[in-house]
Amino acid sequence: MGLELYLDLMSQPCRAVYIFAKKNGIPFQLRTIELLKGQHYTDAFAQVNPLRKVPALKDGDFVLAESVAILLYLSRKYKAPDHWYPQDLQTRARVDEYLAWQHTALRSCCSRAMWQKMMFPVFLGQPVPPERLASTLAELDGCLQMLEDKFLQNKAFLTGPHISVADLVAITELMHDEGLSVLAAKSSRADPNWLRGVSGW
Amino acid sequence: MGLELYLDLMSQPCRAVYIFAKKNGIPFQLRTIELLKGQHYTDAFAQVNPLRKVPALKDGDFVLAESVAILLYLSRKYKAPDHWYPQDLQTRARVDEYLAWQHTALRSCCSRAMWQKMMFPVFLGQPVPPERLASTLAELDGCLQMLEDKFLQNKAFLTGPHISVADLVAITELMHDEGLSVLAAKSSRADPNWLRGVSGW
Ligand SMILES: N[C@@H](CCC(=O)N[C@@H](CS)C(=O)NCC(=O)O)C(=O)O
Ligand SMILES: N[C@@H](CCC(=O)N[C@@H](CS)C(=O)NCC(=O)O)C(=O)O
Repeated sequence: MGLELYLDLMSQPCRAVYIFAKKNGIPFQLRTIELLKGQHYTDAFAQVNPLRKVPALKDGDFVLAESVAILLYLSRKYKAPDHWYPQDLQTRARVDEYLAWQHTALRSCCSRAMWQKMMFPVFLGQPVPPERLASTLAELDGCLQMLEDKFLQNKAFLTGPHISVADLVAITELMHDEGLSVLAAKSSRADPNWLRGVSGW
Repeated sequence: MGLELYLDLMSQPCRAVYIFAKKNGIPFQLRTIELLKGQHYTDAFAQVNPLRKVPALKDGDFVLAESVAILLYLSRKYKAPDHWYPQDLQTRARVDEYLAWQHTALRSCCSRAMWQKMMFPVFLGQPVPPERLASTLAELDGCLQMLEDKFLQNKAFLTGPHISVADLVAITELMHDEGLSVLAAKSSRADPNWLRGVSGW
């Protein structure tokens, strides 16, 4: 059995892995795990990922969770072009820095904003208290400012003139459904040239 | 100017970086940033790390934040022994998987438990509501279970028979002050052989 990727394409980190695999011509079997149907709670899926999250990878007997680990595994195993995860010591460190930062920053803020704007109102039958939403959106704004000031700056991509896995991880988060309209409505901060650069690339 | 590390040794990720540098005989200037004195809010420190967090690294003109990125940078630049961040594709992926997982799992749970048990009562003059603390401790318990079942299993170290940067990141979190007594009191889950292995190593 070749490479299998367990994904729900509604999920941001799954889309980063999917785009990476497709763009690099990596052959894989797509194993769709529908989160909305609770398919990540099945015993069969727990064998693949006891963390019960997507994305997950299976390569023969080897199973691996966490989108960042999966992206690096694929880039190494399939010798993806250098720009994705550059050999250069300092550029690679920049990619690692972004990948580490985003977990508790951009990803966490975007997810909370989406849950509070879209999901909780559906599940709870009422909107979340406005102060709570306002504080989440303020935090998101801080993250976007940091994304721009510390990471993107005046470069074409997050870590320099070429696209890297950091851009995929960032852009799938920023473009997440409603996420984008939250951002678009709230802020001019996600630099349109960069957004165009990544999608046009 | 050689390598400078901006650290507060009260901070878990700073201790991981410090132990790594010391154990590997990496020469560096320690630049202490005292968080309790707010030294991370100075303009001088913002030049080094606009994220205003420790640890941060300065190597000539190159500045870098995020403990995970710093550990990998040091291990590459100073050619640390392979076991820290193994070349082997699958073992390295295991280290990456742990490093990605911990941000929103063990680190997040340990930090919240410590804040709710120790810091909020001091700052707010009263304990946090017992239900809130109970729910944080239950989440911490879930993380410890995952640490054991998915990561440590029956191995000597998190990713195999040898210590890696993943163990340093985990152990500095688990041993964090009061953190340890919370864990010790609550759970027998942090395998004592592993704890002894990492500290005795
Ligand atoms: N840090 C993980 C996060 C994975 C994650 O949060 N996946 C979500 C979908 S976006 C999931 O599977 N959620 C199911 C659940 O938590 O029950 C990664 O980057 O792979
Ligand atoms: N993801 C970062 C986290 C760094 C971090 O949270 N540092 C804390 C100390 S443990 C800090 O500097 N806090 C100061 C603040 O947030 O104001 C890393 O691993 O380096």
